[in-house]
Amino acid sequence: MLAELRAALPADRLLTDPDTVAPYVHDEAEWADHGHPVVVVRPRGTTEVAAVVAACARHRVPVVTRGAGTGLSGGANAVEGCVLLCTERMRDIVEINEAERLAVVQPGVVNDDLRAACAERGLWYPPDPASAPWSTIGGNVATNAGGLCCVKYGVTRDYVLALEVVTAAGEVVRLGRRTAKGVAGYDLAGLMVGSEGTLGVITEITVRLRPLRTTPPRTVVGFFDTLAECGAAVAAVTAQGLQPAAFELIDRHCLRAVNEWRRAGLPEDAAALLLAQTDLPEPAATAEAEAFHAAFVGAGASEAIMSTDPVEAEALFEARRLAYPAFEQRGDALLTEDVCLPRGRLAEMLERVEEISARNDTFIANVAHAGDGNLHPLIIVPHRDQAAKARAQVAFDEIVDAAIALGGTVTGEHGVGLLKRAGMHKELGPGVLALQRAVKAALDPHDILNPGKVVG
Amino acid sequence: MLAELRAALPADRLLTDPDTVAPYVHDEAEWADHGHPVVVVRPRGTTEVAAVVAACARHRVPVVTRGAGTGLSGGANAVEGCVLLCTERMRDIVEINEAERLAVVQPGVVNDDLRAACAERGLWYPPDPASAPWSTIGGNVATNAGGLCCVKYGVTRDYVLALEVVTAAGEVVRLGRRTAKGVAGYDLAGLMVGSEGTLGVITEITVRLRPLRTTPPRTVVGFFDTLAECGAAVAAVTAQGLQPAAFELIDRHCLRAVNEWRRAGLPEDAAALLLAQTDLPEPAATAEAEAFHAAFVGAGASEAIMSTDPVEAEALFEARRLAYPAFEQRGDALLTEDVCLPRGRLAEMLERVEEISARNDTFIANVAHAGDGNLHPLIIVPHRDQAAKARAQVAFDEIVDAAIALGGTVTGEHGVGLLKRAGMHKELGPGVLALQRAVKAALDPHDILNPGKVVG
Repeated sequence: MLAELRAALPADRLLTDPDTVAPYVHDEAEWADHGHPVVVVRPRGTTEVAAVVAACARHRVPVVTRGAGTGLSGGANAVEGCVLLCTERMRDIVEINEAERLAVVQPGVVNDDLRAACAERGLWYPPDPASAPWSTIGGNVATNAGGLCCVKYGVTRDYVLALEVVTAAGEVVRLGRRTAKGVAGYDLAGLMVGSEGTLGVITEITVRLRPLRTTPPRTVVGFFDTLAECGAAVAAVTAQGLQPAAFELIDRHCLRAVNEWRRAGLPEDAAALLLAQTDLPEPAATAEAEAFHAAFVGAGASEAIMSTDPVEAEALFEARRLAYPAFEQRGDALLTEDVCLPRGRLAEMLERVEEISARNDTFIANVAHAGDGNLHPLIIVPHRDQAAKARAQVAFDEIVDAAIALGGTVTGEHGVGLLKRAGMHKELGPGVLALQRAVKAALDPHDILNPGKVVG
Repeated sequence: MLAELRAALPADRLLTDPDTVAPYVHDEAEWADHGHPVVVVRPRGTTEVAAVVAACARHRVPVVTRGAGTGLSGGANAVEGCVLLCTERMRDIVEINEAERLAVVQPGVVNDDLRAACAERGLWYPPDPASAPWSTIGGNVATNAGGLCCVKYGVTRDYVLALEVVTAAGEVVRLGRRTAKGVAGYDLAGLMVGSEGTLGVITEITVRLRPLRTTPPRTVVGFFDTLAECGAAVAAVTAQGLQPAAFELIDRHCLRAVNEWRRAGLPEDAAALLLAQTDLPEPAATAEAEAFHAAFVGAGASEAIMSTDPVEAEALFEARRLAYPAFEQRGDALLTEDVCLPRGRLAEMLERVEEISARNDTFIANVAHAGDGNLHPLIIVPHRDQAAKARAQVAFDEIVDAAIALGGTVTGEHGVGLLKRAGMHKELGPGVLALQRAVKAALDPHDILNPGKVVG
């Protein structure tokens, strides 16, 4: 098969040297297993992708597709003996169209690069995972990535209009449409979103755009002595019909870690703080900011501040984004949770996480897309401490179980990959899993597309 | 099989008398064929639906599900010898939850009834097809219904969080989630939306809600001497980054028909008028209304008016909704188109419709969700005029071909049903159709769920 690929593609597309291959074999889910690919292929276009998948189909060799490898569930990890297809050389922004309010991109385009290119044309691509400076649109689509904006503006799924996909048979198809609406046949483009490379290889993406926001956002910061009060404040904001454009939670552990790393001078006194942002035009912005403030105070905030300084507010949002790398650079091993709860259960879930942390003698810091109920407990363990790792794994599983028990889901935006397979099984149950597997078998009958991931 | 159903269900659930059955055998697509059911079943809950589908599965009898029968593509039409399952007795609003901003309903709940119940709790269910006073949420989900709001607020698909579904095997499964986000497994709830009863029978629906809008909307009306100018105005509004909360087109023929029926006193001088609505808070509303006005004038409107009278504006929107029944009550036969174009091609498409109308000597009136590029040419033919009907069918096919040629889709929101099957085949092509059929076969291996519709 390798000979066939060498014949079909220019030599620079293929990497087989172990040292060169090494950076491609796993994503950021450091606790997930990975195998070794026979080759890393970096195709330059759809025709080359189709040739690779067709060869794999003929030889029944697994194909694992990856973008930037910023995933946190092991979804892009190499399967033993696979062809690892990396989209890093498919970075063209094919079209940005003001009249149709859409963009067409290759899968390897970096999220922030698309956002910047759109902004130049007065347009906005909202989905903004914390990995936006590095992660690719292809990876974002494959995992249905969320981010800070999605509390008001929706997730990647809400922006995908059409996909070009190479099927498990190596055929190129176009799914979806360029129009604002359309119901011709089943929504296979939607089915591909979040399928983590197990149903097809995405080679081109058409996304819906919004007009660029022109109002500078205003932020309200609330400081809370307990996580439970934080949860109550989130519930109050939702129940009052407010619609923050971002609504984040950062706990004291994360603020400390960022302070230690960046000397950021962030407040560390409160147990956690909430950041709620409004992007309404004035005077509605002031009214909304005041309503956030009142909700925070009403829920027991020790302090609440309507920030008038965009730089100060941005520093707090930056701390939110830096929490993960701040712990990572300390040399700790991180196991990142991604449970999503009904908003009204967030306070209860945060209490359970504290209890799980204490009982398992495991350090857990929390950040959350609070307004979505999407909680990211960061389970942090010193490297090489195997006993601590074992306890952390128990804590991870208990958090998953608690989320299911409270009516939540085991993964809000990171995807199933390898780490959440067991949790997904518990969440969905045998009837739904059978349907999931039937769909997988229908679209990938020989199980060559990212086998073993998601429902595999 | 009928004996089995009689044994399993209370007698009042089953209708077999031909006169009683007659109103259930087809939807509003009067030109689509329909067969005759062996029985109409009106179950009262999920358990009864599961019993019906299980019996049909055992006996390999087709099941056709219908709500209120307001569809316009024949999707709910009886298949010869089928069990016709009507959801009209499953009308419970199970839950409206302010804290989670969601509602749970049975499929037979009427769209307007859900909207009214939500409004009492300060919440809003946006999807508003013109059929909203009669059509059911189950039918709206099965067809992924659109409406006036969706230009700004999205279609039914954007509001479905979870579904309870009876599978082709008669098993009850829950798809989706109650949380704001979630990526555990393939998006099978999304796949069900728009699948027109061919992949499962929907027995419960969980929808996302928005806070109720409190700003009374403001409307700008533009009068245009040509449809091409109308199209140019639509393109201008989009290109300027404006986001109307509704953006509709009504042509002179429709205004006349409504005037004749209701003595509505609507203006009939212009070739067509555009209605653009803003629901922003002031003073942004005034700025947006002025921008609509300027765009209309710039595109060549003979007149443009910023309505200060909500009653007057509502009369024009009412005319938009009444266009279809106005022609229908005249006793004419209607063939309703539903093509959706890239917004920038709307003017060109409107010109092609005029040309197709003239060349085929066929009367065609136009209404459109202009801001979505979703055009509803109403092809109107005197009843019993077979020659005119034949010409109308040619016009219908030519409009479909023109939409595909301009990069559009054959159905924006009405669904494929029976009338758009040929068009969908042309639009999707063999590769995508093969994938669609593979999904259908995976979830309904014996082809008992609404066979012959959509990809059947």
